[in-house]
Amino acid sequence: MSHAIVHRCFERVRYADTDKMGIVYNGNYARFFEIGRTELLRSIGLPYVELEKQGILLPVLSLHVEYLAPARYDDLLMIETHYQHDPNVASIQLSYQISRDDVRIARGSTKHSFLLAESWRPTRPPASFVDAVLHHHSSSELS
Amino acid sequence: MSHAIVHRCFERVRYADTDKMGIVYNGNYARFFEIGRTELLRSIGLPYVELEKQGILLPVLSLHVEYLAPARYDDLLMIETHYQHDPNVASIQLSYQISRDDVRIARGSTKHSFLLAESWRPTRPPASFVDAVLHHHSSSELS
Amino acid sequence: MSHAIVHRCFERVRYADTDKMGIVYNGNYARFFEIGRTELLRSIGLPYVELEKQGILLPVLSLHVEYLAPARYDDLLMIETHYQHDPNVASIQLSYQISRDDVRIARGSTKHSFLLAESWRPTRPPASFVDAVLHHHSSSELS
Amino acid sequence: MSHAIVHRCFERVRYADTDKMGIVYNGNYARFFEIGRTELLRSIGLPYVELEKQGILLPVLSLHVEYLAPARYDDLLMIETHYQHDPNVASIQLSYQISRDDVRIARGSTKHSFLLAESWRPTRPPASFVDAVLHHHSSSELS
Repeated sequence: MSHAIVHRCFERVRYADTDKMGIVYNGNYARFFEIGRTELLRSIGLPYVELEKQGILLPVLSLHVEYLAPARYDDLLMIETHYQHDPNVASIQLSYQISRDDVRIARGSTKHSFLLAESWRPTRPPASFVDAVLHHHSSSELS
Repeated sequence: MSHAIVHRCFERVRYADTDKMGIVYNGNYARFFEIGRTELLRSIGLPYVELEKQGILLPVLSLHVEYLAPARYDDLLMIETHYQHDPNVASIQLSYQISRDDVRIARGSTKHSFLLAESWRPTRPPASFVDAVLHHHSSSELS
Repeated sequence: MSHAIVHRCFERVRYADTDKMGIVYNGNYARFFEIGRTELLRSIGLPYVELEKQGILLPVLSLHVEYLAPARYDDLLMIETHYQHDPNVASIQLSYQISRDDVRIARGSTKHSFLLAESWRPTRPPASFVDAVLHHHSSSELS
Repeated sequence: MSHAIVHRCFERVRYADTDKMGIVYNGNYARFFEIGRTELLRSIGLPYVELEKQGILLPVLSLHVEYLAPARYDDLLMIETHYQHDPNVASIQLSYQISRDDVRIARGSTKHSFLLAESWRPTRPPASFVDAVLHHHSSSELS
């Protein structure tokens, strides 16, 4: 009963992402992480825009990135996003690994809390989220 | 009776602005232009946040940039912003010149329309804007 | 004998692309245009990284964008890039249309010159580029 | 003998920094941190461009950010950067606090290693850096 979700997607490095060292600027990994968690949510049937329509925001509480090897222009990066559901915790954490072929480029994590969009007050993970996470888990176990 | 406003400010080029060619990425001049018009508005006593509080938005209708010479990391760029008031036109246009010492780096322009924030429908330039522009003009003539 | 190339690709709007107006920040269309021309070059067998390996740079001389309708978070935008080859001109121009389903979001253009990476001096379009453009044209006509 | 350096500077939040939540996008704090450490280095007489001219790079090994309160458009943020010199360690660490008046917005840290620009191989902190740090310390004690 791990309740773990793993999602992989790919993103190409653009000139816009690089800096004068010839590598991806350190702050731009936040974008790769955003893409990872957005596509993970979409893959379990709950696009983030749906959460927003339900009046829920999921702002970033913390960001951590370790840079293991430079990512360069035109690299096709694999973004691997992990989510481990813990029903006892109000905030959620995602972890990320960025790689190019067999080269590990970066790893990191973000923490998020669920907020009511109207009041910006914390709220429990909404049922739509918990259902999507648990349903995904069940169907993964069946396959 | 030129009704012209000129404003100068300075902005330093950061690693975040550069790309792997070692120069400022072409899209990042939009930020320099934004800084220019924001500080021009502040200088005539009407910060853009005040316009927003009055329910007015000023989105960009068009952007034009000509790149004359590369801007490089740590350059201290001068942003010169020009506004020429025309009471017969609903949209406004600003023009910009970016330079480093005597080197002309870029020039360009943006067009904007005034929108009501609630409906996103076009509106006449608000009185607060026209007053700030004309008042600024008058005091410049006096000095 | 139009020597025209059209390429279409798709890019999703991320939180990182938006601003507090809830729409894509005006400067970020430069990234969409970059993606458009990069993927056009790849589609004719000449990835931009190959040009760089040949010692050629293709910096942006000018950028023009008209914003027709707002692009919003999570929109899947179609980037349509047009290139019309003119053998008599040293610089090249690309034009772009950004749309979401039937809504035209933006259109624009960029001009570029070929530079020698070592000296940053202008150079004629390299044979690899001209060949890729003309070969692409021929095979399009055959199909 | 604390060998500690503290530097404060200010940076205004631009539209370009915000996202559709109406706050500064999480990845853009990397830019604030970059500004903080760049201006700290300039304040002790060793601009980062000088290090680069000496053939030294200082890439980011890790980035950590905690978001304590939202930063909003047009906020004038104070960036406070701390550096504590440890002669026994090859990499360096800086810590940052972002605030607006009395509101703590964010805190974080970055780790960096000194690299030779030619080979991208690690190197000891160069004498120019150690001298600037120690000289700064001494003159602070005198004042």
